[in-house]
Amino acid sequence: MVNTAGQVIRCKAAVAWEAGKPLVIETVEVAPPQKMEVRLKVLYTSLCRTDVYFWEATGQKPLFPRILGHEASGIVESIGEGVTDVQPGDHVFPVFTGECKECVHCKSKESNMCNLLRINTDRGVMIHDGKSRFSINGKPIFHFVGTSTFSEYTVVHVGCVAKINPLAPLDKVCGVSCGITTGLGAALNVAKPPKGSTVAVFGLGTVGLAAAEGARIAGASRIIGVDLNSSKFELATKFGVTEFVNPKEHNKPVQEVIAEMTDGGVDRSIECTGNVDAMISAFECVHDGWGVAVIVGIPHKDAVFKTHPMKLLQERTLKGTFFGNFKASDLPSLVEKYMNKELELEKFITHEIPFTEINKAFEYMLKGEGLRCIIRMDG
Amino acid sequence: MVNTAGQVIRCKAAVAWEAGKPLVIETVEVAPPQKMEVRLKVLYTSLCRTDVYFWEATGQKPLFPRILGHEASGIVESIGEGVTDVQPGDHVFPVFTGECKECVHCKSKESNMCNLLRINTDRGVMIHDGKSRFSINGKPIFHFVGTSTFSEYTVVHVGCVAKINPLAPLDKVCGVSCGITTGLGAALNVAKPPKGSTVAVFGLGTVGLAAAEGARIAGASRIIGVDLNSSKFELATKFGVTEFVNPKEHNKPVQEVIAEMTDGGVDRSIECTGNVDAMISAFECVHDGWGVAVIVGIPHKDAVFKTHPMKLLQERTLKGTFFGNFKASDLPSLVEKYMNKELELEKFITHEIPFTEINKAFEYMLKGEGLRCIIRMDG
Repeated sequence: MVNTAGQVIRCKAAVAWEAGKPLVIETVEVAPPQKMEVRLKVLYTSLCRTDVYFWEATGQKPLFPRILGHEASGIVESIGEGVTDVQPGDHVFPVFTGECKECVHCKSKESNMCNLLRINTDRGVMIHDGKSRFSINGKPIFHFVGTSTFSEYTVVHVGCVAKINPLAPLDKVCGVSCGITTGLGAALNVAKPPKGSTVAVFGLGTVGLAAAEGARIAGASRIIGVDLNSSKFELATKFGVTEFVNPKEHNKPVQEVIAEMTDGGVDRSIECTGNVDAMISAFECVHDGWGVAVIVGIPHKDAVFKTHPMKLLQERTLKGTFFGNFKASDLPSLVEKYMNKELELEKFITHEIPFTEINKAFEYMLKGEGLRCIIRMDG
Repeated sequence: MVNTAGQVIRCKAAVAWEAGKPLVIETVEVAPPQKMEVRLKVLYTSLCRTDVYFWEATGQKPLFPRILGHEASGIVESIGEGVTDVQPGDHVFPVFTGECKECVHCKSKESNMCNLLRINTDRGVMIHDGKSRFSINGKPIFHFVGTSTFSEYTVVHVGCVAKINPLAPLDKVCGVSCGITTGLGAALNVAKPPKGSTVAVFGLGTVGLAAAEGARIAGASRIIGVDLNSSKFELATKFGVTEFVNPKEHNKPVQEVIAEMTDGGVDRSIECTGNVDAMISAFECVHDGWGVAVIVGIPHKDAVFKTHPMKLLQERTLKGTFFGNFKASDLPSLVEKYMNKELELEKFITHEIPFTEINKAFEYMLKGEGLRCIIRMDG
């Protein structure tokens, strides 16, 4: 490996020039990492629904040209001033929500919403100097959630890096840096279904199936998958889903269908679609007296959650979670769970493509085809 | 005491003949208790906001003539077939939400919402035979929430009776059968504020102040009382309230005022007014990352709780509670706490009147004057 520390690196990146248009593979300049920053060589990345939202930019603030991408794995290329937590050569995840380790959130055991490094989808520059590290012929290209992994090299804040076991296969564990962890944590850290309980999961994409997997690991005995696309049901059985409901196949609200299937409601529900009507259904389908609904999916900016307060007074709980309540520093332990065969990751990977074909990943996701599509940066 | 078991008892009761009109003290006939029923001699009762709602009957199903009242203490006069849990002479609370001890709710440690005996404000008759035990000259008078304590004698289901320490002064502990327990449980059983935490309490009536008392007992270091009536603030300090906010004195939403006072929000909030806007404020004023809002107040039947789902995704929790998540069978232990001086009850009693003046209690409550008004049935 040529020593590139301190130098501008010219490499390939997939640039989103405007909303909804295919990404274009460009040669970009990646500036060296500044104070408390790390430059990574991205080896694998994958596409997550959140990238697609900000690429479509409907109902979100548009910010272009931009390098999207936040689910990835790679190796530290060089480090900026003040960085001691990682060294060049370390195997790492970039993490879209980091830890400054000093704010009230970082000091709280319950929160992962760091004041300094929590996800900020509107910011397209580095915190240190308010500038981008990416450019094409001197024209800056915006960052995305502090990670911008659709580039062979990227610069991130050191608090947005999680160092993992160097023996872990970086392609297999890549999904731990976002989607899988989000769903898994929503089940294991937030919903916490008791052994033998009944859980409904809304949305059978990667996050929803990771939530189902978490419910299965926690010992739920019935896991009801809810999705508008019935073709997802077969794959879902691999993730512990035992029953299926397609709301389109019923003439009554899905919360009523589920209440009838479960003698009054499920013990836990986990909403992974981001659709506000699904959120309301997920809340209203939990059993009175003890039911807990967990909201995971990212809503439209104008969405309004509405319910009758009596649904609450009947002793239901509604919780939201962000990144499954995991902190960046928890991610290495999830990689260890994979290495110890406690966590299966391979079954989330349904496609693999070279970087040059990155737009195919968008096509798969928009068609609802498969789960994670691993993008090999060397391809 | 003359043995009246098995006979119709003629006694005084305060009858609500129509919505919003003063109660009228009438002589009523109280039939003997039927299967699994208990007839009580009520010694003390007090007025709770819920009685007023169903007396006003705006936004609620009107059911008249009716004998209201559900917060009370008394002595078992006689028991019906199959009753073994209590005997004539036992000191008891009637409880508006009972326990059958056999349904999924009664078997759950978390729920107090018994399928058979949970509160039912629309039912005006006994479950056993669908009939009333009250009549005037043969014309039935409706029951209220299975308790109807504004009568010298009343008939309740045995699952709606809690047997308490016979040494406890029945006037002082009367409030444990509803309002005090509701607020105390909302804090101790549901909000569970950590030691040193900050708690906002919306509504400084009996329930709200009992919630403040619970927060104080739990070790909260700041308790912010919120009420539209600033005259309530002085009394509130006796219940651990340390700071006050009157939303009318601010030009911005109270959730913003509270967020500024607390560097981002309170750790816990407890809503005790039933006003849906206060519920929304109570939810939105809790800190992201870990805040928990607990809804206690009974909303208007057409109320809609609305919030942006991002408020949830920022790791806030919204929970409702009914009767502070206490089961009827938990009430004797609260009386013991009073007997052991762990719980102060006297400070909730601000008025005391004879039964014949019961309409004064409505006046005090409608004026927002004082807390509990104890009504002596022998007066």
